[in-house]
Amino acid sequence: MRVFASDAHRAHFPAGEIYNGELVRPFECPERWDHIDDALTAAGMTERHDAAAVGVDRLAAVHDPAFVDFLTHAWDEWTAQGHDGDMIPTCFPARRMNQRIPADIDGRLGYFAFAAETSIMSGTWSAALAAASLANEAAVRTIADGEPSFALCRPPGHHASIDFFGGYCYLNNAAIAAETMLAEGAERVAVIDVDFHHGNGTQDIFWTRQDVFFGSVHGDPAHEFPHFSGYADEAGGGDGEGATVNRPLAPGTDASTWFAALDDLIDHAVGHGVDALVVSLGVDTYENDPISSFRLASADFAGIGERLAGLDVPTVYCMEGGYAVAEIGTNVVNVLRGHVGV
Amino acid sequence: MRVFASDAHRAHFPAGEIYNGELVRPFECPERWDHIDDALTAAGMTERHDAAAVGVDRLAAVHDPAFVDFLTHAWDEWTAQGHDGDMIPTCFPARRMNQRIPADIDGRLGYFAFAAETSIMSGTWSAALAAASLANEAAVRTIADGEPSFALCRPPGHHASIDFFGGYCYLNNAAIAAETMLAEGAERVAVIDVDFHHGNGTQDIFWTRQDVFFGSVHGDPAHEFPHFSGYADEAGGGDGEGATVNRPLAPGTDASTWFAALDDLIDHAVGHGVDALVVSLGVDTYENDPISSFRLASADFAGIGERLAGLDVPTVYCMEGGYAVAEIGTNVVNVLRGHVGV
Repeated sequence: MRVFASDAHRAHFPAGEIYNGELVRPFECPERWDHIDDALTAAGMTERHDAAAVGVDRLAAVHDPAFVDFLTHAWDEWTAQGHDGDMIPTCFPARRMNQRIPADIDGRLGYFAFAAETSIMSGTWSAALAAASLANEAAVRTIADGEPSFALCRPPGHHASIDFFGGYCYLNNAAIAAETMLAEGAERVAVIDVDFHHGNGTQDIFWTRQDVFFGSVHGDPAHEFPHFSGYADEAGGGDGEGATVNRPLAPGTDASTWFAALDDLIDHAVGHGVDALVVSLGVDTYENDPISSFRLASADFAGIGERLAGLDVPTVYCMEGGYAVAEIGTNVVNVLRGHVGV
Repeated sequence: MRVFASDAHRAHFPAGEIYNGELVRPFECPERWDHIDDALTAAGMTERHDAAAVGVDRLAAVHDPAFVDFLTHAWDEWTAQGHDGDMIPTCFPARRMNQRIPADIDGRLGYFAFAAETSIMSGTWSAALAAASLANEAAVRTIADGEPSFALCRPPGHHASIDFFGGYCYLNNAAIAAETMLAEGAERVAVIDVDFHHGNGTQDIFWTRQDVFFGSVHGDPAHEFPHFSGYADEAGGGDGEGATVNRPLAPGTDASTWFAALDDLIDHAVGHGVDALVVSLGVDTYENDPISSFRLASADFAGIGERLAGLDVPTVYCMEGGYAVAEIGTNVVNVLRGHVGV
């Protein structure tokens, strides 16, 4: 298992996250990365690969160029208007409202977002670009030699959609990895998302395509973030019909039910004839996660890697969520060890 | 000028408003009401009329019953889940997302909102209902005897739409007043909105109707809140085509340009044959307003009342915005004095 990681993530750590009516320390924090890095080292995965910056053309293959442009310049525009605090989106183009893109930065901040718990700060763009670059590089290398890779992405990516950010995500690292695998020779890629939360961004990006299968097992959106994506009847549209499979599960779901859903996703991916795999690896399915409700134990995580390795195709893991900070490293390492069978 | 007012507004004052990446003291604060109350008294308008609670049927005439139900029970559902802070919406059903109404309170909070600067607290529903009741009662009385009324509504209402809150607004007081005037015998009502911000909620509620004309002069949404409503080409739809008129104006607009737009709206209302008038009275067009950018002086506000009185129809003023707290009373009284010609 080759590990791609970069210290560039440290530039991103917003001052607060809206939770229970207050601004609290964000659950998505730099120590998450440190604990994973430490656990990888302790498990003997000591080498770290960095990455060249991913090209704008690759970003534009999965995101609206206007959105990429917004993210690139947002902080400079914001501070040019005299602001010094983080950019928290407040006004959103709700149903029946005008969908024209506003001229001012406050308006565009809401236009290009779907959630207000996630803000943009001075270092957000550089960190997001670095995370996407790791995913891209991991995909290039894994397609080249078949060795599985782990991209220790932070910020995560699977909630970032064609043209909006939120849920701690800005650029969709997993979607970029899938796109890169196609560009490097894969013909059909599966993105399997095992994060507790539905990967609404990834689904949206590949909704109308057959060359990328998207399968997700997650908390039922009727009860869990992102609330407006991930129902069982969402199965792709247009040319992409049938290439999206969602397995929403009830709050409190235990490991055996969860693994049955994962096996089902894997069967669908096999049936789709995929020749490469991207895993959106969240470990917030862990029983002690502070903002999630599934009941996987640390030892269970090895089973995720074991099952996904059974697909027997070039595989890139991209780090997504997981907020039980002290245990996040152990849980991630268990997945990766399960994959390589040690 | 008959004044409708109630102390019930004091139950509503959220702990914070998102602004510049922080939670700051809300601009929409109880002292706004106090300053208006004091200025009315100083100007000899000493009598205060209260109101019986507006009926649910009247609310349901302008709002989705599911939205009214949400507002009614939101705080109890929130606290039942163990929360104790204010309800700040964080996750919104953005474009292409599933528009199904979630089961859990966090999901519904975002579904029924379009902005995150506005939160729900313990006393929000009682205060919003009291404000709507004042608007309703003022409409009943004014249609009955023709005497103009001022409903000192707090919270304000014009951003509250068929099924979402935001912009400090929960129930659309002005829309309720218009609906009541129709129920009490008016045949065509004009709602003229002079607040600095576009009355997106009122527009949305009456979008497809001819019996309510909606005209608004406001900051260009390309540059100003609510960002996604109020462009000049928004003119009503379906059966309501032509019965909505928007006059967005550039940041920094002066009084002469602003009054020309108001005159234009009044001409349209006359042309529409209206026999009753509701005024969404915001005084945040004032030159020293902290979150707006027009340049009306205090003395200019009398001209608003003078011009609107020229329509010569039963008229109800509903209080909307205005955040230069020390001067808000003077500016409101100047409008009302202008109307009655003293």
